[in-house]
Amino acid sequence: MTKSYESVRKTVSAEENPIQLLFDLLEGVIVFTEEEKKALLKEVVIETYPKGTILVREGEYKSPCYFVLKGCVRKYYEVDGEEKTTAFYTESDSIGSSSCTNRRMATGYYLECLEETIVSVGTEESESSFFERFPRFEAICRKQTEEQLHELSEVLAQYIISSPEQRYLNLLKTQPQLLARVPQYHLASFIGVKPESLSRIRKRIMTREQA
Amino acid sequence: MTKSYESVRKTVSAEENPIQLLFDLLEGVIVFTEEEKKALLKEVVIETYPKGTILVREGEYKSPCYFVLKGCVRKYYEVDGEEKTTAFYTESDSIGSSSCTNRRMATGYYLECLEETIVSVGTEESESSFFERFPRFEAICRKQTEEQLHELSEVLAQYIISSPEQRYLNLLKTQPQLLARVPQYHLASFIGVKPESLSRIRKRIMTREQA
Repeated sequence: MTKSYESVRKTVSAEENPIQLLFDLLEGVIVFTEEEKKALLKEVVIETYPKGTILVREGEYKSPCYFVLKGCVRKYYEVDGEEKTTAFYTESDSIGSSSCTNRRMATGYYLECLEETIVSVGTEESESSFFERFPRFEAICRKQTEEQLHELSEVLAQYIISSPEQRYLNLLKTQPQLLARVPQYHLASFIGVKPESLSRIRKRIMTREQA
Repeated sequence: MTKSYESVRKTVSAEENPIQLLFDLLEGVIVFTEEEKKALLKEVVIETYPKGTILVREGEYKSPCYFVLKGCVRKYYEVDGEEKTTAFYTESDSIGSSSCTNRRMATGYYLECLEETIVSVGTEESESSFFERFPRFEAICRKQTEEQLHELSEVLAQYIISSPEQRYLNLLKTQPQLLARVPQYHLASFIGVKPESLSRIRKRIMTREQA
């Protein structure tokens, strides 16, 4: 069963220390000054959602952008009554939304937490005011977004040039942790086959490895 | 027959006026001051390549980023001796490269001009020095890159959730001009079928439209 966005917000307990998690993940690319850290601590919005929460629904006009601190989020579309999975987001992944760039478009997809998920939540407004105060982050974010664009362009290309079996092998290679965290039928949907076909693909791979 | 990158650079004639073309395309999103225009005019590198030119080859470590002013560029991968098309770029499209973001990675694809193509050519260095002089472009480019990232995420999702026939219908809807400009076998490769299957798909669509 899925729960609505509003009903499940809760305050994060100090034990979980998500702020430290945020700094740990970001400090791979940014070294913060004390002043920047203080400003970020004051501005940052951290939210925790239980497994099964629907963060965004098809047809919504406004949804924030998320940065995943912990957990796993699935993006899917409803096509003729069937859920088709198009992405998984885990630790350090950003989830953009049309409303972060263009407020006129309704979202065409759903975002579902496959695990209890901790995110930092951003809006265009909160980003802009932070950039105004600390302009150097504008350049850092531009470069990060360019990196993401390049990576996504590679993901698209690899999806197009690969068979379902190759797509599964790509997942094994690039996101092995997903395979243990995500139910098989979501993985099957993502690589474009029925769950039975994914079972056959996995058997084929295992037989080859044992040979 | 394809020609190499270096052998085909030529100076653009004044008749073609690519600089005006660049301003026309950019002024949809940016209004330039006179000072900015002058600086851009001084810095901008415009190149024209004949149809058939290979701009980038698999295995290259450094390739510039392009902004297409006129023409059409195809991105493809060589898989088991077969060319697999993964993208088409036309007027106003940016073509990023791994070397714009990460110099350690070799390019895994080819870029081929399907028509005579005029591009403005950028490097990380030229971008950085322009941003240093005119910091407001940093924010404009960040937002533009975010838009592109969102669009590409939609392209990937639509590719995953669609059948080859739906992919062809998507192209008809979103990039109808491509269908007249790109050979059928490249379109077939892009939507993931053999050219014979694309012929069948097109016949099926035409029959439905006439019914």
